[in-house]
Amino acid sequence: MQIRVMIVGYGNVGRGVRCSIERQPDMMLCGIASRSPQRVMKEVSDVPVMDVSDIDGWLARFRPDVAILCGGSKDDLPKQGPEYCRVVNTVDSFDNHSRIPEYFHTMDDAARACGHVSVISTGWDPGIFSLERVLGGSFLPGSRAYGFYGLGPAGGLSMGHSDAIRTIKGVVDARQYTHAVPEAVERVRRGENPDFKPGDMHTRECFVVVEEGADKARIEREILEMPGYFAPYRTVVNFVSKEELAERCAGFPHDGLVVTAGVTGPNSNPAVAEYRCNWGSNPEATANVLVAHARAAFRLSEDGCSGAFTILDIPPAYFSAHDREELLKHWM
Amino acid sequence: MQIRVMIVGYGNVGRGVRCSIERQPDMMLCGIASRSPQRVMKEVSDVPVMDVSDIDGWLARFRPDVAILCGGSKDDLPKQGPEYCRVVNTVDSFDNHSRIPEYFHTMDDAARACGHVSVISTGWDPGIFSLERVLGGSFLPGSRAYGFYGLGPAGGLSMGHSDAIRTIKGVVDARQYTHAVPEAVERVRRGENPDFKPGDMHTRECFVVVEEGADKARIEREILEMPGYFAPYRTVVNFVSKEELAERCAGFPHDGLVVTAGVTGPNSNPAVAEYRCNWGSNPEATANVLVAHARAAFRLSEDGCSGAFTILDIPPAYFSAHDREELLKHWM
Repeated sequence: MQIRVMIVGYGNVGRGVRCSIERQPDMMLCGIASRSPQRVMKEVSDVPVMDVSDIDGWLARFRPDVAILCGGSKDDLPKQGPEYCRVVNTVDSFDNHSRIPEYFHTMDDAARACGHVSVISTGWDPGIFSLERVLGGSFLPGSRAYGFYGLGPAGGLSMGHSDAIRTIKGVVDARQYTHAVPEAVERVRRGENPDFKPGDMHTRECFVVVEEGADKARIEREILEMPGYFAPYRTVVNFVSKEELAERCAGFPHDGLVVTAGVTGPNSNPAVAEYRCNWGSNPEATANVLVAHARAAFRLSEDGCSGAFTILDIPPAYFSAHDREELLKHWM
Repeated sequence: MQIRVMIVGYGNVGRGVRCSIERQPDMMLCGIASRSPQRVMKEVSDVPVMDVSDIDGWLARFRPDVAILCGGSKDDLPKQGPEYCRVVNTVDSFDNHSRIPEYFHTMDDAARACGHVSVISTGWDPGIFSLERVLGGSFLPGSRAYGFYGLGPAGGLSMGHSDAIRTIKGVVDARQYTHAVPEAVERVRRGENPDFKPGDMHTRECFVVVEEGADKARIEREILEMPGYFAPYRTVVNFVSKEELAERCAGFPHDGLVVTAGVTGPNSNPAVAEYRCNWGSNPEATANVLVAHARAAFRLSEDGCSGAFTILDIPPAYFSAHDREELLKHWM
């Protein structure tokens, strides 16, 4: 029996989910729900596509075991999450870190009331990185876990910061790449457990296309002074043509590092644990993590569980397509 | 209320467990059981020490919530594990990979029959590395997880291989350092998912002290030809004095890497996930992992669970001293 997975929202993450499901031995894509089913149908012909608002319709036609919610954290998930977890097990990548506690409890109440499982806030950060932070903090007590992004030469593409630049008057398009500060990484690896300000850990590099005749000095100033997004960071702004942007900034690469450095034993021997990821496509990597969590959501539901779960609440074997005997024999 | 943890077997890992418990906010060391209580008492004065065979005695005196079994996998754990899990929740680092399935079922039957939780085969490998292999395989389906050891210039000290050299006639003492083959690591990172023979991934470096007048040529040959341990590997043998060994080979450093490289999406974008650890002291790092699992064993037992568990069966939040709200707020 295959796990029937549906996709809600067919953007870059949704496309990645579709591709990932095809690589799983125990899952099938039972349908796609979208606000623009006509657009999706032009791209997808072998899977049923329905309007996302027709809940009774897609429940009856798709018969999903799990819905992967691929919408954004700002507008989509706060509305879709509590609504859909009442009718089906869900997985989402809600990534507004400061609002995760509130979202967890909202989802926990809604899902529990209707006997469903909702895995929230997964992907690579929050998600894998949350898990690695907790492992680091648990196995090296007293140390802190640090997250760095954009360690490779290209840096990591930040969609949120790119969007923020696009809100400035006169900007046609933009990409923002985050770079980790190598000296900061080395300080953490040496076990200093430093108190960083955000600007100590990362710098920001912007590629900006502006309207003909736009005031570049004003735009640069507005970027550099944008509170939260750019003001706390050393930021470089590069004005480029539309063609340069298309050539230089193709795809959605991203990479990151979680480092925990502590000491062990009475002689304070150094101990360092790191998790490093390097994704050619950020949304596709996120999608792959979501799909493994759909398997876990299905199994938790089969166990009779309900309510909200994060990656921290799930036994890792639940992510794997392999059964216990195979895991004991070849993966331990 | 503090979790009462006892130590069974007071060698290097046991000492590391003691030190780690002191760094935990929610645990206390309630006692040490040893085959040589007199020896341990010379070293430890502030914690009760009893003979390990006096089970009724230490159960009554220590009142342990969890016992961490710090003995070896060859002779101690196959006997102690099934015996002690009948009377107390246990954690151990059984690391004979090929016998883990058998050991799991033995422990599962024994622990379940008496309503206890036994976390088996944890530490860093098996343990953290098992977890990272399963995460890698689950999040990047179709790829393989590779383990490398000894990536730093010093290499990683292998106790098993050091012991094997010491069995050779004429050898007084020995240390064996494992080195990862850098080209093999790079092939995996590039996503080749190669078929390696063991000798393709690691080389072995031996430091050997021999008896006065011993036949070095014969000893070197016996090392190089030892099946399983050295024959499949490119091996270098260095004969050193007792003093050189003491100076050059102090401590128990070890380090390792788990790499999984796959592709995502229809255009096969590269995706690489790595876990890297670097321990100044291998037994102390193992001890820290065991202690976090003692917390998990206690919580699983409080939940009403029983039977054998591996790191793959435990929600990661159970390792952390922090509660759910703190984890949601600061660790996601």
